[in-house]
Amino acid sequence: MKNRVITISREFGSGGRTIGKKVAEKLGIPCYDSELIQKIAEETGFNEKYIKEAGEYAPGGFLSTLTGRAYGPTNEDYLWKIQCKIIAGLAAKGPCVIVGRCADYILRDKADCLKVFIHADLAFRAERIVKEYGEREESPEQRLKDKDKRRAAYHRFYTNMKWGHAQNYDLTLNSGTLGIDKCVRIIQELY
Amino acid sequence: MKNRVITISREFGSGGRTIGKKVAEKLGIPCYDSELIQKIAEETGFNEKYIKEAGEYAPGGFLSTLTGRAYGPTNEDYLWKIQCKIIAGLAAKGPCVIVGRCADYILRDKADCLKVFIHADLAFRAERIVKEYGEREESPEQRLKDKDKRRAAYHRFYTNMKWGHAQNYDLTLNSGTLGIDKCVRIIQELY
Repeated sequence: MKNRVITISREFGSGGRTIGKKVAEKLGIPCYDSELIQKIAEETGFNEKYIKEAGEYAPGGFLSTLTGRAYGPTNEDYLWKIQCKIIAGLAAKGPCVIVGRCADYILRDKADCLKVFIHADLAFRAERIVKEYGEREESPEQRLKDKDKRRAAYHRFYTNMKWGHAQNYDLTLNSGTLGIDKCVRIIQELY
Repeated sequence: MKNRVITISREFGSGGRTIGKKVAEKLGIPCYDSELIQKIAEETGFNEKYIKEAGEYAPGGFLSTLTGRAYGPTNEDYLWKIQCKIIAGLAAKGPCVIVGRCADYILRDKADCLKVFIHADLAFRAERIVKEYGEREESPEQRLKDKDKRRAAYHRFYTNMKWGHAQNYDLTLNSGTLGIDKCVRIIQELY
């Protein structure tokens, strides 16, 4: 029998990671997020910052120019393969929550997934990222728009699915209007 | 203070109407769906079948050719205006559930809305529409694709928003994977 896994895709700053951690805590199952990046780092030898960033660049962009897609698979393609293997391995070990990294797509025929997408409007997310990650030179709105664009392009490139399109998920939740705690409760109850 | 209204947009055959009725029943508030069409019919003099169909044609299509958009507002534009007035009137009367007809958009600054979108995959919906509306000459899958396309175009034309895009709603639910009753419970609890 396939394991039951909760996959959480999320807009940057929407609190998807926090929601994933809280749900996992309540259900007493592991939550993989930055742990996932550590594992990929161990397996590939790339450093964590590079992996984090590569997960947001669709090949064909800036990184690819450097790594030379024209001459065959890029570093991102290599990372993607390892990522698929690691995520499939985690899902095979037992029930868990996996945040980001296209886990919903990777596990589509490997686990019994509850596929969740978390989003919120710009103002809510802008406030959260300043609180969480501090001020930067760029405005928080600009940072969000940039991140959203990258994640959508990455997702589209590897999964050929539209990011944030309701039809790709079992449920999508607006953490800005519903609040983080209500999102946690709904997911927990559905599991 | 603005009234609390639940608006339900839905893919044809997803059970959105059933979910709306059940939620309204549990909460003891009215649910407007076909009642809405009756009201529009009374106010405009158009018959109900015409209104139902016009609600799925974006001006610019077949109906417009007949009604002559080139010469000014079409019948659909006229219907849209009346529809906006009626929906705003219902929301002003008190808490309620409104199914379809772009109520989420129409009420965006007139009510405190919980905006829901219900969808399900083709197979689930095909089975439901055959059970609910019987067989037709066209295959159920073809009927669904056709309806989806029309609703999306209509929604886009009048609201300039993407239909089924998670970001437009507080929550979206897959009635096929979650089941009608769970959808009802989630909405009821969130209200």
